[in-house]
Order: sequence, then C-alpha cells, then structure tokens
Amino acid sequence: MLNRRIAEVLRSGQPEDSLIVKGWVRTKRELKGFAFIEVNDGSSLANLQAVINQDLPDYEAIIKQLNTGASVEVSGVLVASQGKGQRIELQAAAVKVYGEADPETYPLQKKRHSFEFLRTIGHLRSRTNSFGAVFRVRNACSAAIHEFFQQRGFLWVHTPVITANDCEGAGELFSVTSLDLKNIPRTDNQAIDYTQDFFGKPTYLTVSGQLQAEVMAMAFSNVYTFGPTFRAENSNTSRHLAEFWMVEPEIAFCDLDGNMDLAEAFLKHIFQYVLEKCPEDMEFFNQRIDNTVLATADNIINNQFERLTYTEAVKLLETAKVKFEYPVSWGLDLQSEHERYLAEQLFKKPVIVTDYPAEIKAFYMRLNDDEKTVRAMDILAPKIGEIIGGSQREERLEVLEKRILAQGMQPEDLSWYLDLRRYGSVPHAGFGLGFERLVQFITGMANIRDVIPFPRTPQSAEF
Amino acid sequence: MLNRRIAEVLRSGQPEDSLIVKGWVRTKRELKGFAFIEVNDGSSLANLQAVINQDLPDYEAIIKQLNTGASVEVSGVLVASQGKGQRIELQAAAVKVYGEADPETYPLQKKRHSFEFLRTIGHLRSRTNSFGAVFRVRNACSAAIHEFFQQRGFLWVHTPVITANDCEGAGELFSVTSLDLKNIPRTDNQAIDYTQDFFGKPTYLTVSGQLQAEVMAMAFSNVYTFGPTFRAENSNTSRHLAEFWMVEPEIAFCDLDGNMDLAEAFLKHIFQYVLEKCPEDMEFFNQRIDNTVLATADNIINNQFERLTYTEAVKLLETAKVKFEYPVSWGLDLQSEHERYLAEQLFKKPVIVTDYPAEIKAFYMRLNDDEKTVRAMDILAPKIGEIIGGSQREERLEVLEKRILAQGMQPEDLSWYLDLRRYGSVPHAGFGLGFERLVQFITGMANIRDVIPFPRTPQSAEF
Repeated sequence: MLNRRIAEVLRSGQPEDSLIVKGWVRTKRELKGFAFIEVNDGSSLANLQAVINQDLPDYEAIIKQLNTGASVEVSGVLVASQGKGQRIELQAAAVKVYGEADPETYPLQKKRHSFEFLRTIGHLRSRTNSFGAVFRVRNACSAAIHEFFQQRGFLWVHTPVITANDCEGAGELFSVTSLDLKNIPRTDNQAIDYTQDFFGKPTYLTVSGQLQAEVMAMAFSNVYTFGPTFRAENSNTSRHLAEFWMVEPEIAFCDLDGNMDLAEAFLKHIFQYVLEKCPEDMEFFNQRIDNTVLATADNIINNQFERLTYTEAVKLLETAKVKFEYPVSWGLDLQSEHERYLAEQLFKKPVIVTDYPAEIKAFYMRLNDDEKTVRAMDILAPKIGEIIGGSQREERLEVLEKRILAQGMQPEDLSWYLDLRRYGSVPHAGFGLGFERLVQFITGMANIRDVIPFPRTPQSAEF
Repeated sequence: MLNRRIAEVLRSGQPEDSLIVKGWVRTKRELKGFAFIEVNDGSSLANLQAVINQDLPDYEAIIKQLNTGASVEVSGVLVASQGKGQRIELQAAAVKVYGEADPETYPLQKKRHSFEFLRTIGHLRSRTNSFGAVFRVRNACSAAIHEFFQQRGFLWVHTPVITANDCEGAGELFSVTSLDLKNIPRTDNQAIDYTQDFFGKPTYLTVSGQLQAEVMAMAFSNVYTFGPTFRAENSNTSRHLAEFWMVEPEIAFCDLDGNMDLAEAFLKHIFQYVLEKCPEDMEFFNQRIDNTVLATADNIINNQFERLTYTEAVKLLETAKVKFEYPVSWGLDLQSEHERYLAEQLFKKPVIVTDYPAEIKAFYMRLNDDEKTVRAMDILAPKIGEIIGGSQREERLEVLEKRILAQGMQPEDLSWYLDLRRYGSVPHAGFGLGFERLVQFITGMANIRDVIPFPRTPQSAEF
C-alpha cells in the first residue's frame, strides 16, 4: 500500500528487477546521451541516484522538468552502480513528473543557505539535508522516549494545555480567552466580566503538567507527560521558545536517588536509540554542524554521571582557578558558566547537582531535615548546561502548606493538590526534560528555532 | 530500581519467597485473628490480596490505619491462595503505612459513585476501577498509534498549538495573548495595538495541525501529528471538549484509496493492540459499562469496511424504510442519525463514505472531475458515528486558489501553503482521528469527559 522508501532500498543495497520510487529531485547532471538525478523522499539523508537514458521517450522534455525540487516517480531496474559514491542506482525505464519547481523562483537551489535565511522559508526548509536530519532525529528522540517509559510500565498521560492555575510559578503566562479583545465585557465595578468567558474565569497556557501528573501518579504509580508547554517570556535568544515540548515523568514510591537513576538511564537510552536508528544523520551533524556530537553521545552513554550536592558544588566553584563573571556564594543560583565549568572542565561528563537552597527552588520540592535545602536535582551536561531539572516532591501536608504560604500563595487555591497529601500520600519524585534542548544537545544545532518545525518566538508565529 | 508492579506479580502467578509491593488499599476485611487487604498500584484492574496476621507487631494500630485509600508497602511471602477469587496472595511479614486516608473525609469509600460525582473529584477519580481501566486503555491506544506509524516509517511531527491562521475553518477559536486584558492597548484609531502583543499579531489555539503536517509530508513523505487541538464552541454535550487530542497522518504520493486502506489498517491495529495489552480492562468495560464493546472490537477487526460514495449513500438513505428526523437530499450533510443507520442497521460494520459535495467540505479537498464533489472520506462506525474524517488534498495550484476564493478567503493569506503546490507538488492525502472519540468508542464510556484526565468544557477548567 505504502510506497517503497529510499532508505529501505539503500539499506538493502541489493539489485532489483523492478522498482518504483517517488520523491523530489535534489540535483540533476546532464551528460552526453544521459542524465543523472538524485532523488530524495525524506526517509534518509542519502539520495537514490537514477540514470535517465536518452532512449526514454520525451527525453528532452522530461529532463527540462527535472529541476531541483521537482516531484517525480521513477520506475526501472535497480543495478550495481559503476560510479563512485553509491553502491546501487536506478536505471529509469519511465519517469513521471508530478510537479515542477521553477528554478527561477524556487528558493532551494543547490547552493548552501544560512539557517537564518531558511527560517524565513520554514515551510520549505525541511527539504534540505540539515533539516531533514534534524527532524528525523527529533522523531527518533520522541520514539525513544515513548519506548523507554512504555517498556517500564509508565502510562502516557495527557495533562491539559489550558489551565486556571496561575501559581505554578514559572514566569509569564499567555492568556487564553474567548472574549472579544476589542470589547472586553466589564462588570459594574469595571472588573473583567469573566462569567462571559468560555471557562468562566481567567485561563492560561500551561507552563508544566507536573501538578496534574502527580495526580495521575497517585493512582497509576508511574506516569509521564509529553506535550507542549508555554512561556510568554520576552526572551529573543537562541535558547528560548514561547512554545516547546516537555517530558515530565512522575514516580510514586520513589525518592531522589531513584529519580536520579531513572533520569540517567533515560538520557542514555535516548542517545543509544538515536545512534542506532539515525547513524547517517548523526555522522552528518558531526561533520557539518558540530564535530563534538559523536564524542558527546559517547560521553553520555559510557560515563556514570557525577552526583554531588549544591553545597559541594559551591565549594568546588569557590576554589576553582577560573574567573567567573557572576558571583558564587551559598544561596545564589548557579549560572550557566558555573554549570558548564562543573560539567565541561571539572568532571568532563554529566553532573547531577542535588539539594539546592529552598529559597531558590519551587514550593513543591521536599524540604530536607536541615530545613534550608530541598531535594532538588539538576542534570548539567557538557556544552548544553542544564538538561533536566527535577525533585523529590514534598509529601507531608503541613510542610507543603507552610512552603506554599512562604512563597506568597494560598493553600486554598491548591486544595486539590493538597488532597494528594491528605489521602494516601506517598514519597514521590519526578523530573522535566525540555525536549528541544535535548534535540539541540544531540544534534549540535546552535539555535533552538532550528530543531522545532514551526518555532514560536517574540514577534513571530509564522505558518 | 523501579518497584515490582502488581500487574506483573499477578500475571506470573508464581509463589515467591520474598516480595515487596507498594500501592493503595482498596478494601479491608477484618476477621478473627487476621485481616485481608486488597492493594492496588494502578498497574492493573485486579488487586493483590495481602493477609495480615495478628502476630504482626503493632497489629491493632496498623489495621486501624489501613482504610480505603491509605498508601502502604507490604513485604512478605507470595503463596498460593486458599480462598476464592485469587490464585496467589501475599502473607505480610511487614506492613508500612505511608499515608492514611481518613474514612470520615476521603470521598472514595467502597460504595459505587456516579460518574457525575466523580467528575467533581477529578484529582481522585483515577483511583477507581472504572477510571483506572479508562486511562490504562487510553495509554494503550496512544502506544498503539505510535507503534503503527513508527513501524511504517512515519515521522511524528509536532505542529504548533499557537497559530496566526484564522482560516482553517473549523468553528470558533480561542485567542492567545500576552496583552493585559484589563487594559488592552489601542492604536490612534482605536484598533487593538497588536505590536505590543507577544507575537505582534492576533494568535489563536490551533484547530488542526493538518496544513503544517502537509508541509512536513512534502519533505518526509509520511508524517503524523498527535497533539492537542481546540474548539471554543459552546457545546455542553457528552461529545464535545474544548481541548482534545487529535491524530493526523499525512501521506505524500497517496490518493484516496491509499488513504482509506491506511485508515482501516490503523483502526484495526489499535483495537487489536488494546485487546492484547488490556484484556482485563476490556472485559471490565464489557461487563460494567457497555456489553457491546467486545463485539464492537471484533466487528472492527474482522470486517472489511464497506466503501461507498456520498451519492450512493444518499440513495440508500432516501429509500430506507426508517423515518429520519432530518431531511436527506443530495447536497445536504449527513446527520448523525443517517450515519448510524448506514453503519448500524444497513451494513452492520464500519462504512467509509467518499466523494461528498464540494460545498459542504473544506477548501483543501481535491475536486473531482464532476466539479461538484471532492475526494473526502468519513469513516462511520456503529454506535459512535463519524470516527475518522479525511481527504485527498487538492494538489493543483489553480484549482486550490479558486476554492480558497470561493470560500471567501484570500490566497495571499495562505501563500506558504500554496507554495507546496508551486514547488514539487504531489498527490497526497490524510485523515484526522479525534482521540477521545476513539477512546469512547473502544471503552463504551458514554461521556467524553470521562475519557480524558482533566476535561475542558464550557465554564469548567478545573485542576
């Protein structure tokens, strides 16, 4: 039913008497009496070379149509190739052109384009080698994530995108409304009349599915989310997106040690899976984008992650023989330069820093007996910095209520969340992985806008 | 690292010298000198029975704590059970209570609760048999969907939730904004000053990822989306959600026949997967929720779907010996009663109706040579009605432009989408599956709010 994919044809590498492939022309070379075209169908980085002989009816007319970007169906005999660069090639018995691509206007001609330029043609950029490789690897990362959790009996839970909770505390929120923005209805005292809004109250785009994932973990023990999350933060950088995907496992009957074990196994699994499924794409990134990506993958897979407390990390940073731009002192958050020093220079492998000061971490993290630190963990990786953040959650009702109040929130607003501690509370833990950061980390792509098909950033929501 | 799950212990059914399980107490029965508790960890419908003997230190104190909903760790010896109803049981050597659940206030006592009531405690309802089964099956459906497409070389593509396209034509949209709703900035001529909004223009929550999936299919041939979509439609029914998940494959070099083949194989695969992975949950639905669900699964898996055109369907409906509430006439859309008549009464199996009048279908569907109908398809299933809708897409630039104009839209607003027809256009097709409708269909759950963890509906965005 589905067409033969070029990846499969190339992988097998065996001659075939009869083959039909469908794809897009990447390049054409005309020689005396025949022409070569390279056909790509997106299933692999490599193209299939087709040889078109002048004996073909309408040879001249067809060759004129076979420009870069044209869509074709080529049928013929797959034979061992005489030329260099490919084992097999397709000797065309028939060529059908579905759609042309005018070389005068089609923007993706053979020359290299900058990623900046390609972002302006986001609807076409996936047809290039780089973005083809990025989105195949992105898919492999997704598949690896599901495989990892499904094999371990975790349920994928769909937590809501639209939320009425404004207290998750992760920066600025997008409002969601069905009200007419031109004419917001008002009550008698000039407040917004939310009774006329779809949900009857203010609603926002979620910043995290964690609190709802905790609900599900208290019934199914092991769950994970994998869905879009949002930040209305006006950060126009190569590391920020307004809409990005996040993976958030939540594990009942689990402490921070179990959480670290799971996170480490998880990262290793993803890298191994991608190397196995996309070796050619990874080789491409290593050659063309960042010549450390294969070494990084090896580093992640084959090292036991270093584990140390925040307090130990601060000591190491204070005695470091490098000059940091930002101050290091117990109580201050670690900056990117500090994280990278630990992972890249000191340990030269991923580092898990635990037990951060309570004041700089979220209310739901479990307070240690010292009452100063919480059972948080950040996984810092060479080159990318923080790749995973997580914690053991506070399962004690009274402690949690105090922490909520201390952060200026009202326990009543989270009564459903507190119920999880009132009824059958258990030690539990979880973490969050920013999916696009992971794809950047694996591929070496410098700008986060280049690892998501349609990036949403300040002043830009194209396509 | 992870705990032994009860599902696994029960599946093996073998005695074990030493076992630790962790979960929540479902019931307790006190007898003379000992007590039984049923422990559930969410991994299966069935509980593990633990026998607690009065020899246990602190027996009386522990038994008092072991109420419905309490969280426990039980360690002991797994032995063949003397009693009826279970093959094996755990003879407790030690019981640790993590968290109690006060029987005076914990709402989930042993008696049955209505689904209406359980919706009001959405943060606890997953701890019941029914919702445990629903969300295990929901997860199995998700896993089946990924397995189906990944095995066939489709890439999972993440299409954006936030979109600036308001022309996808599927009902009312939610606005997304970072503007202060209390004080919307205005330009000199009193229009909304969108330059101050995050994206610099009006943005909405997506109603479909199809147009963006088409972009990706034109590079990778076969792709699918699986993500949240939104409707601000004020429909307070058992079939509508404001936020729901949708699966949308898009296939290049594929016509409507290929699309139908894929959709039929897809549905069959999901049902087979769920029956294989969740037999106990499916048995539960058949016994407690809807005694036709197993017959329905069998019907889907073992029948070739009937295929007929809209014109043929209208003829059959016009000559049907039943009285319909809504009129049947060529040019009018089929109503739910018509769809159910075809699937339930006439063919008694799923029916694929194709080639609907162009006027009642979306602009992107391929116009037939009769210039009156388009290559649309709806899959109608017994009991649920329309479960899948799809089409072959219009790949001809001029025809598509005309259709866009005919529907009152401007081709310029979709220039990126039209570029897919300008450069290397190919015949392609795809369909959409409403994921919650599917879960309803499989489980027999009557209300769509009961197959998603945290439903979003008019006037309700709880948790």
